Order: sequence, then structure tokens, then C-alpha cells
Amino acid sequence: MNDLKTKALEFHVGGKVEIKSKVKLDDKNDLSLAYSPGVAYPCLEIAEDKELAYRYTSKHNTIAVITDGSAVLGLGDIGPVAAMPVMEGKCLLFKKFANVDAIPICIDAKDTEELINTIKAIAPSFGGINLEDIAFPKCVEVEERLAEELDIPVFHDDQKGTAIVTAAALINAARLVNKPLHTLRVAMSGFGSAGSSIAKLLKKLGVKTIYAVNRKGIISKTKDYPKTVTDMLENNLIDSYDIKDRDDLAEIVKDSDVFIGVSVQDVLTPEMVNTMKDKPIIFALANPNPEISYENAQKSKAYIIATGRSDYPNQINNVLAFPGLFRGILDARYKKITDEMCLAASYAIADLIKDEIRPDYIVPSVFDERVVVAVRNAIIETGE
Amino acid sequence: MNDLKTKALEFHVGGKVEIKSKVKLDDKNDLSLAYSPGVAYPCLEIAEDKELAYRYTSKHNTIAVITDGSAVLGLGDIGPVAAMPVMEGKCLLFKKFANVDAIPICIDAKDTEELINTIKAIAPSFGGINLEDIAFPKCVEVEERLAEELDIPVFHDDQKGTAIVTAAALINAARLVNKPLHTLRVAMSGFGSAGSSIAKLLKKLGVKTIYAVNRKGIISKTKDYPKTVTDMLENNLIDSYDIKDRDDLAEIVKDSDVFIGVSVQDVLTPEMVNTMKDKPIIFALANPNPEISYENAQKSKAYIIATGRSDYPNQINNVLAFPGLFRGILDARYKKITDEMCLAASYAIADLIKDEIRPDYIVPSVFDERVVVAVRNAIIETGE
Repeated sequence: MNDLKTKALEFHVGGKVEIKSKVKLDDKNDLSLAYSPGVAYPCLEIAEDKELAYRYTSKHNTIAVITDGSAVLGLGDIGPVAAMPVMEGKCLLFKKFANVDAIPICIDAKDTEELINTIKAIAPSFGGINLEDIAFPKCVEVEERLAEELDIPVFHDDQKGTAIVTAAALINAARLVNKPLHTLRVAMSGFGSAGSSIAKLLKKLGVKTIYAVNRKGIISKTKDYPKTVTDMLENNLIDSYDIKDRDDLAEIVKDSDVFIGVSVQDVLTPEMVNTMKDKPIIFALANPNPEISYENAQKSKAYIIATGRSDYPNQINNVLAFPGLFRGILDARYKKITDEMCLAASYAIADLIKDEIRPDYIVPSVFDERVVVAVRNAIIETGE
Repeated sequence: MNDLKTKALEFHVGGKVEIKSKVKLDDKNDLSLAYSPGVAYPCLEIAEDKELAYRYTSKHNTIAVITDGSAVLGLGDIGPVAAMPVMEGKCLLFKKFANVDAIPICIDAKDTEELINTIKAIAPSFGGINLEDIAFPKCVEVEERLAEELDIPVFHDDQKGTAIVTAAALINAARLVNKPLHTLRVAMSGFGSAGSSIAKLLKKLGVKTIYAVNRKGIISKTKDYPKTVTDMLENNLIDSYDIKDRDDLAEIVKDSDVFIGVSVQDVLTPEMVNTMKDKPIIFALANPNPEISYENAQKSKAYIIATGRSDYPNQINNVLAFPGLFRGILDARYKKITDEMCLAASYAIADLIKDEIRPDYIVPSVFDERVVVAVRNAIIETGE
């Protein structure tokens, strides 16, 4: 058993979250306020006006962190119970970084419809929903349907959270290499939850050209895809590539300015990086092992290298986005999460360090306490 | 606005429960254990063996407190959101009295089937389910189906919790009046969630004769009822009464030893109590206003008077049962809650004070810290 495994298992014994009372409950008088008969009064107020649930219950600060366990970390479809440690971990991060009370809910659903219906049914207790580790393309439908049908904000972190932080990193990287965003050609490896959402947000950011490969090779209008991908092609949220020589990553990486990997380890070589335009920007985000190791990337002409790892510079980690985003959403009591909020969050993260950026410092540290405040304020200022 | 209302609303501002971390999360090392990459190890262990969720997550100590808001306190069908203060209050009590982490979940379900399916779908995160304030007779089907179909314990407190404490009070009351349980004739007012469950448990306790009135008058085989009531009549869990003079409470109260009210205020008069056998036992549990006021009961020949109120002697309150019951269930990791456990809990509560009982002290105080330990141990000792 390796050292990290031993430590991680030991760390998890007994679980990671518990419930805490926010009120005094020491005597019969407290009991008569917190429970029968006093509790009837807030119930009656809320029955008259549902919005008062935000005043008289924990709803205003409580979100559900929900998964069906269908795409957990890099582990795949391990099912709802086995996903619980990740959901609890996420709840810890929400509390630690933004004082958001997040409840882990692992759902055993046989299909997309049952997953959606279950989440809708439990929504009344919560001020927001953070979806997590739901397989692509199911996650797109689940997020879109819930956002439309519920009156509380819904956010799939693997989609939009990753996209916000990747966009923030790209904003600063483009500043460093002095190339305007609209001139960048981006090559992506992986086009699932994260990849598709990154492409959408980069297009909103002004990036003109994005090519991608997934398991079917280079994404091109000549191939068949699920509706979510076809829709993106039709709306130019991902660009169709006319295959010339070879239907693989090497072909789209050549002559690109940016590589973004949200796929699997070791698919990008130093030689491929060297076929890119000058000052290549490499975001190799597969976890724990990136598309190109930091050491190998350093052997190429890569100018900026970012990964998802905490042990190398430029960690592109969702924790830069989701705590401040939900803090802002809950504080302003917004009902929807818009593209404008996501872009505002990206710029808030990037701008926080814009006067200090270097090739090995394009995003703030996850422990930089200014981040959550900056993102929160940016979200609130969108005035949605 | 009356004083209790003002205080209760003020008490509830901001909500009553929050999330707390059980682990240290101060630096990158902690983060790598609590979240990626370390968190993958407990996930993989649980994927191999689901029982390990009890070891590596909070499941072992976490239950859901669930309602659909269809029968909240005495307020009726006020819906899921408005029921939230009661659910949060219940969660506080679980934490305060038994260190059980309870999560309030208010479900918006259009019918019984959707309610059952939603609870089944969210069950993986939890070590148990406490149902609350679900209308009769729907609550009976919901509890029975879930208990059968889930591999975690399911408990409807309005049914079994009330029954356990009422049975405990009756055990001590019978001791005081020196009448064996099997000789008692019981007259009940109200036959919903609580009433039907009290009747079932008193029969298990050995009580031979129980008559009841509900909105259709005296319960009798000559009338039509929902299946849950018909089944109870057929199985002698409630006795059919042959109506002689009048089809109301006065007729069954006459010549009874015990009155148990789980209905509405002021249906029992001192004159009716005076038609009972000697040393009448009166449990008037309607809240906040009992079937007969304490003062009125004192004007009759009532020998023992108990209510649900904290401001009179003999408070029959579920909080004597549910914290210790779940503490025992979770500690022993039992998968089902049996009638034997309920009876064991009743005797544990009663026996705790059996050497001190008086007509105004037949159940322990809700703040008697020995209660939760006694109930917990009794549950574990059933060895189910």
C-alpha cells in the first residue's frame, strides 16, 4: 500500500462532515422556540410566503452537492455510494473557502429522467444545486433541464467550474504572450463535460478558433455525434475541422497557439508541442497524470505550462471558482447562473494577479483568500 | 403579535443548522488527502465493498429527516418548504440528544409513489431515514415500503416514536394503579399516524382491549375504512366495537381504564372521565391544546394525567425515544427497526424511573441525560 493511499484512507475514517447547531438549545424554553410549539410560527409565515424560507430556515446558505456517481474523478462510473467521499470533500471546500453549507447527496437513479425528477423533488430545502461527476452528455441535459425547471441556481462544476478557471488562466496567458484572445487557435484533447463547457465559454470570451479531438478522432461535421455536440457544431461553439493528413491530436495541435487537455495522460509529446506557433500555451489538465508531464513539457518550446496538480506551478483548480461563485449567488439570491456570471468570475480570478503574472504564475493560489471575495463581488455586480 | 410568536420568529432568523468539518483542512497536504488525488482511495475501496461507506464516509452517523409537508404539527398540509423549520428543529434534537447528524430534506412529491421513489433514490448517502409529518394513511405505506425495499433503517416518528413513549408512560401508569396491562381497556380519540401506531404497539405490549373513535365515529367492523385500518381490525390490532347508545367518544370512554387522545382539543369532559373505571389514566396528547385541559382533568376523578406539553407534569414527548433509538440503531448498524426494538425502548424509558414513579412522574424528563443511553443500550441488546 503506498503512502498516499495509507494516509488518505486513515484521513477518511469516520467521514469528513457533520451537522452543527446554529442556536442555543439548553433548556425547555429554547426547546419551545426551536421546536414545538414555537416552530409553528415560522412554518406559518413560510406557508404564506415561500420566499420567507430564506429568512427563517438555513435555505439561504445551504446547497446540495449532488452526483449519480456516473463519472467520478478519473474513476468512471463507480456508482452513488462510492462517490460519497468526493461529495463530502466538495462540501468541506464549500465551507472552508466560502462558508457555504453544502450537503452531500448521492443519487441512485436508473436514468436521466429519474435523476432530474429526484433532484427537483428534493430542491425545496436548498438555496442552490451543485452537480458533480455526472457523465457526459447526460450532465448537459440534467443541468439545462434543472436550470430551466427549478427556481434556484443549478451549476455542474465539472462543466462550468472547470471552464471558468481555464478561461481565467487563458486570459492571463494571452496577456503574457501578447496575443489577443480572438487571434488564438486552440486545440483541445477531450470533449466531455469539461471540454465542451470550456469550448463554449472560450467562444463567449472571444476566442475564434477551437478544434478538438475526442474518442472518435478530430471533431468534424462529417461525423455523427450526440445532439449536444451537433448543436455546438451548428452554433459554432466548437469548430469543425477538415481533416487533411491524420485524424488525431497531432494534426490539430500543429499551428495552434494553445493546447487544452481534459482527457488522459501522455497523449501530447514534446515533438507535438514544437509544431505549435511561437510561445505555446499548454494546459494539461488530466488528473492526476497530465496529457504531458511537466518535465516533458519543459523539454519542448512550451512557454506557459499549467496542470491540475498542486505540486507544480499554475494549478488550474475549480476551487478557484465554485466557492466564490456560490457565495455571490447566495448573497445576491440570484435564481439562475448565466454565461455573463461565468465570464465575470473568470476575469475576477485573472485580474486579481494581472500586475504580477509570469509564465509560472497565471492563476492565483487556491489558498489566496482574496479569490473568493473577488469572485463573489464580480458575480453580485453582474446584477442579473 | 404575541410574545411567543415574536421570540420564535426572531430565534429562527438565519436558520438553525449548519455544516461543520470533522477534519483539518489548512494546507495543500490536507487538500490532497480530503480531495483530489487522495479521495480516490476511499472511493475505490467503497466501489469494491459498499459496506466500507460506513467506515470512510459520514454515512455511519448521518440520517435524513424527511417530510413531504403533508401533515405538519397541527398545521396540516402546508407543503414541503414551510415544513423546513420543523425538520431543522428535529435535526437539532438529534444532534443535541444523541450526536446523530441529521439532514433536513423537504420533498415536493405529487403522489405516494414519487415520494417513495425519491427517498429510495437519495438513500445511498444516509445510514437511516427518519420520516416526519407525512399524512395518514399515506405514511403507513411509505414507511412499510421503504423499510422493505431499502437496506437502511426507516422510522416514521409520528407513528412509532409517539407509540414508544406512550407505551412507556402506560407501563408506569399501570404499575401505579396496580392493574396488569392485559386487563386494561383503552379508549382512544384519534386514529391517524399516531393513534394507529399506538394501538399496534399496545397490543404487542399485551393490552387486550382497545377501542377508538376517528372522524367516522367509533371504529367498528360495520363501517368502511382504508385498507390500513381494515387490516388492523382483521388482525385485532384495534378492536371493533358494537355500538349500543351513541356513536361517539363518550360511549367508549365509559368503563375504560385508560384514555389516550391524539386528536383535537376539548373533546373529553370531566363528566366523561367520571364514567371511567377507578383510577382513570388520562393521556391527552393533542398539541398545543390537549383533549382535556390539565385543569379540567384535575376536576375529575382522573388519577394520572399526562399531556404533550412541557409546562405540565408527565410530558409524553417523542424526544424521549427517537434520539436513543437512532443512536442504538446506528451504533449496532441494524438494517431494520422491529417491533421488539420499539418495545425494548418503551421498557427502557419506563424502567429508568420505575422506583420513583408517582402520578405526576410516569416518564423521565426530556432533559434526563440517562434516557438516550438507556434507550440506545436497550436497542442494541435486542440483538436483531
